[in-house]
Amino acid sequence: MGIVENSGAVFPASAVADGVAFPRRVPVPPPRSFIETLRTNLKETFFPDDPLRQFKNERGPRRVFMGLAYLFPVLEWAPSYNFGLLKSDLVAGITIASLAIPQGISYAKLANLPPILGLYSSFVPPMVYAMMGSSKDLAVGTVAVASMLIASMLGKEVPPSQNPTLYLHLAFTATFFAGVFQACLGMLRLGFIVDFLSHATIVGFMGGAATVVCLQQLKGMLGLQHFTTSTDLVSVMESVLTQTHQWRWESVVLGSCFLFFLLLTRYLSKKGPKFFWISAAAPLTSVILGSLLVYLTHAENHGVQVIGYLKKGINPPSLTNLVFTAPHMMVALKTGIVTGVIALAEGIAVGRSFAMFKNYHIDGNKEMIAFGMMNIAGSLTSCYLTTGPFSRSAVNYNAGCKTAISNVVMAVAVMITLLFLTPLFHYTPLVVLSAIIIAAMLGLINYEAAIHLWQVDKIDFCVCMAAYFGVVFGSVEIGLVLAVAMSILRVLLFVARPRTTVLGNIPNSSTYRRMDQYSVAQSVQGVLILRIDAPIYFTNASYLRERISRWIDEEQERLKSNGETSLQYVILDLGAVGSIDTSGIDLLKEVQKSLERRDLQLVLANPGSEVMKKLDNSKVLEIIGQQWIFLTVGEAVAACDFLMHTCKSGAIARNNADQVMTHPDNIV
Amino acid sequence: MGIVENSGAVFPASAVADGVAFPRRVPVPPPRSFIETLRTNLKETFFPDDPLRQFKNERGPRRVFMGLAYLFPVLEWAPSYNFGLLKSDLVAGITIASLAIPQGISYAKLANLPPILGLYSSFVPPMVYAMMGSSKDLAVGTVAVASMLIASMLGKEVPPSQNPTLYLHLAFTATFFAGVFQACLGMLRLGFIVDFLSHATIVGFMGGAATVVCLQQLKGMLGLQHFTTSTDLVSVMESVLTQTHQWRWESVVLGSCFLFFLLLTRYLSKKGPKFFWISAAAPLTSVILGSLLVYLTHAENHGVQVIGYLKKGINPPSLTNLVFTAPHMMVALKTGIVTGVIALAEGIAVGRSFAMFKNYHIDGNKEMIAFGMMNIAGSLTSCYLTTGPFSRSAVNYNAGCKTAISNVVMAVAVMITLLFLTPLFHYTPLVVLSAIIIAAMLGLINYEAAIHLWQVDKIDFCVCMAAYFGVVFGSVEIGLVLAVAMSILRVLLFVARPRTTVLGNIPNSSTYRRMDQYSVAQSVQGVLILRIDAPIYFTNASYLRERISRWIDEEQERLKSNGETSLQYVILDLGAVGSIDTSGIDLLKEVQKSLERRDLQLVLANPGSEVMKKLDNSKVLEIIGQQWIFLTVGEAVAACDFLMHTCKSGAIARNNADQVMTHPDNIV
Repeated sequence: MGIVENSGAVFPASAVADGVAFPRRVPVPPPRSFIETLRTNLKETFFPDDPLRQFKNERGPRRVFMGLAYLFPVLEWAPSYNFGLLKSDLVAGITIASLAIPQGISYAKLANLPPILGLYSSFVPPMVYAMMGSSKDLAVGTVAVASMLIASMLGKEVPPSQNPTLYLHLAFTATFFAGVFQACLGMLRLGFIVDFLSHATIVGFMGGAATVVCLQQLKGMLGLQHFTTSTDLVSVMESVLTQTHQWRWESVVLGSCFLFFLLLTRYLSKKGPKFFWISAAAPLTSVILGSLLVYLTHAENHGVQVIGYLKKGINPPSLTNLVFTAPHMMVALKTGIVTGVIALAEGIAVGRSFAMFKNYHIDGNKEMIAFGMMNIAGSLTSCYLTTGPFSRSAVNYNAGCKTAISNVVMAVAVMITLLFLTPLFHYTPLVVLSAIIIAAMLGLINYEAAIHLWQVDKIDFCVCMAAYFGVVFGSVEIGLVLAVAMSILRVLLFVARPRTTVLGNIPNSSTYRRMDQYSVAQSVQGVLILRIDAPIYFTNASYLRERISRWIDEEQERLKSNGETSLQYVILDLGAVGSIDTSGIDLLKEVQKSLERRDLQLVLANPGSEVMKKLDNSKVLEIIGQQWIFLTVGEAVAACDFLMHTCKSGAIARNNADQVMTHPDNIV
Repeated sequence: MGIVENSGAVFPASAVADGVAFPRRVPVPPPRSFIETLRTNLKETFFPDDPLRQFKNERGPRRVFMGLAYLFPVLEWAPSYNFGLLKSDLVAGITIASLAIPQGISYAKLANLPPILGLYSSFVPPMVYAMMGSSKDLAVGTVAVASMLIASMLGKEVPPSQNPTLYLHLAFTATFFAGVFQACLGMLRLGFIVDFLSHATIVGFMGGAATVVCLQQLKGMLGLQHFTTSTDLVSVMESVLTQTHQWRWESVVLGSCFLFFLLLTRYLSKKGPKFFWISAAAPLTSVILGSLLVYLTHAENHGVQVIGYLKKGINPPSLTNLVFTAPHMMVALKTGIVTGVIALAEGIAVGRSFAMFKNYHIDGNKEMIAFGMMNIAGSLTSCYLTTGPFSRSAVNYNAGCKTAISNVVMAVAVMITLLFLTPLFHYTPLVVLSAIIIAAMLGLINYEAAIHLWQVDKIDFCVCMAAYFGVVFGSVEIGLVLAVAMSILRVLLFVARPRTTVLGNIPNSSTYRRMDQYSVAQSVQGVLILRIDAPIYFTNASYLRERISRWIDEEQERLKSNGETSLQYVILDLGAVGSIDTSGIDLLKEVQKSLERRDLQLVLANPGSEVMKKLDNSKVLEIIGQQWIFLTVGEAVAACDFLMHTCKSGAIARNNADQVMTHPDNIV
């Protein structure tokens, strides 16, 4: 163990103290079979949550039951369901029903679909979700953004005014495809696709969509007959301002009053969670008030449009209505996938956040299957796309729901409405629905979040703005594509331009940290320590080549100008290099070669097992020499120091090192 | 400094020895102005090589000259050019000329362009490159792959057989666009776009293209008159096997002989670099032999096709031939961009590799400008796309070229040929050209590289194979898109599924390493140390949430089953988290919250400055508590240990810690 004897005195105290009697080596990981590696990688990619873990050491019928309970969580909690829980669920269910009915009708109008569909969609899907969903607080229903999307995407192909039946059938088909797509994502464990909609994207997108939806409501608020089908700000404003003579003061007045009322209640209920019911009950109240008003004043004859006749009875089947034939199937498919993803993003985000409040776990992929099934079932029973809207779930949560039974209660309430109360909505003025929608949408324009993004992360802010303005001035698709593209570009750019930083020694320790971050860090004589902060891939290999050589040039210039001892060792800290590909390996080889020509020695510190394995497979390990690969930067520096002191010339140092430092005992 | 007194004895020796009298804090980096940050980021992204560095502390005329010299490197080395250099350049230049003339003609035929274009393209572009290029070894000329691409992409739109003039003009236009595109990439500092063609992609792509080109040569080798225009294996084989009766034994025999001769010379010259001239001279030799043979035997009347009449004189101008009008401009643009990128990828790779041999530096972006200018100039003087082919550059290098003057010598030699010797090629049989092309192409099918990829990195191998089979069975574009998509997906997947590993203590040191990599690493009682190996972004935030909670579950189960002391602290080693976005920050917040509910304490170790800054901006720092953020894992563990020993309950520990560990002196 030559090195110990000569080193003892020479090694810096810190290194010795650090237990480094002699530098330890980084082992090459034992070879693993290709299949083995593949298996683990696939598992990590598709089953990160290891859903089958619980099935281990279970057997027979119990296992079957757990399998069923995995698909139908209701089986887990139903047995322990009791009257106490039912009471709270009853209250919550009725509360959300009072919200669901007016909202449902409003959003159906927004989607250019018969109002009754809004009620249908609050009946069947909640039942399905109650069986399959794993969230206790999610309240199922239609959402404004998806409704607007359906209107704009399907409306382009088939104007609802010209061919309402086909339009309706396409809506069912789109819902069906959305459901299938969602279920597939869940079953194929592709949940992470939803993650590509970053928080920033969703904030911007939702805000933009809300703005667009509000603009659409100008039609109802101003009582306009004709309106543009396109959703962007410019054409909407155009179509509003060109027909000022068509504005009906009656609906303007009525609308403003109700909007004021709704916003007031929103403001009041913000005072504290116990006032939640004020805003929860407001929509229904205004619907009733509005209907009474119209009924008494016969305002429907004075330019105030009303819902009109609503057919009694629960959902008719709609299996036969699905359109699986060209030319219209494709647009339904496209609409289904886009709306499906949006709906998932919202629903799962909502589910997760409430699960976090109450500290229980939600399996994203499982939720997707639940959402998918609920939409497939919906599409067969005259419902259109449903998900877990935030507003309604929040009310559900505040109303003290305990289990998914609150959804069942809501469904039953809606069913009763469908069976007996539909005539009551005959006189409901559309302008009230517009007011309800606007009030709901204003809540979605989350400017505080945007400000927060600006403060924390400028790029995220740009992504958010791209989504917002893309939606408002372009179209929903444009906004989405812009935002997602920017987010992905950011990831690629991080990998394409990894940060490389010079490390320095933190006084009286063997710790080495970024000198630009820690002012106390001090550079080491004759040694340049570089840290690479990203995986080394083809995208950044040639950049790193340039950058490293530039670091060395600059360092050598600096040393020359200060007349300090010239550079002898370059240490690359690979601690943060999580992964490497062949281009990366070639890079290390090239760096080693070019350093050799400059009579410098390349030293590697703390490479991960993947890096070591690939260095070994590619024989680059032999070129660099395993004795030049250290466990920590501290040990690498200590070794370089030792060699610089014992033998001045880099060349001798190298030979010396090769015999001295390759002692078998030195392999960790 | 309370902690020091009580800790002294309690802290593990290693920690004390490590200079940790008391744990040091990680400082929040001083706020930098948004503009400042933006500037540095843009600089790192677009000017990583800091090209203007040399201009500092220079002024006036000198600066202007350096500016010119930056664009025209010739100005730098021309003054010091001497007779000695000229001699070596002369030899090298003549050698590559003897290669350039037959190759040029062959590749022009391959591109379905008049053979003379091959000579034109070896005259003007080399001159331009000699002025602007920064490589000393690159030999400019046309390449088989780009030629084939032009043939297949333009041929689809305008069959050369039907409208040769338009086809020719489109080829010029495509070259022009390629040049403009390359120059723009260089000027806009977007060189890194080329990096997205990874080494694996290029190996697979080149191999595939070479295979396709060889298949195309069956036409010439078999002396077929009619041949399919599509390039994929299936249709080529079909068109070959369906007209077996058309095969001409004369050209088959002749072709095979020359092919054998060429391959033999290739084999001989492999014996050592001093034999390079054997293979370098072989093509011209076989052209001469072939022409003589035909001339003497009048084989042209027996089904051996010959080049025929070649017009004397140097390049005619072709500015007026460029096509900037619909409908054909778009295809020229597309061809130009695709071929331009391919040409860049090859040319720059070649330049870089030779620069590395001779240890001089090449600026990728500058090279792109040079390539661009040379192709723009070419497109105006009846040349088609040129770049720096590897084969020719290798010959140039082996022939001992010293500067770009060797390109000028070649150009002059070609000029002389154009002016006086074109008639000599009248009887050159096409089959010889085919043989030359095949011999060259076989060198491009780099199966060793593919095997190496398989050994080192399986994913890179898949990318390579995707490129190869995409090109061979589909089309060149399909192959490229497939490979690039796969490579990018790999990058995204790395970020979407970051590796998280448990760290353990390396005996008698305060170093902590991956337990799956270091068998000796030992876990610490009551503490779980997790390391995240990638930036925390929206793509992986929710994955990490799942994964971390699973790590904790598993650890707690393990401890319970072993009856060890339960978990009290979870340390996240953020050393490898190079970057973080708002989703990442939210993740940390959520983890902290959920740990609190489980009565565990979250501890962060070694966060980078970006992480610290964002934690601070988003106020999450206060939620976690700066006293729970340590410089190293070692110190974090030491502190946890100390607290566990002094006060058992986690809760007390926390309060205790809060007063004890937030001493001002403790901030580094």
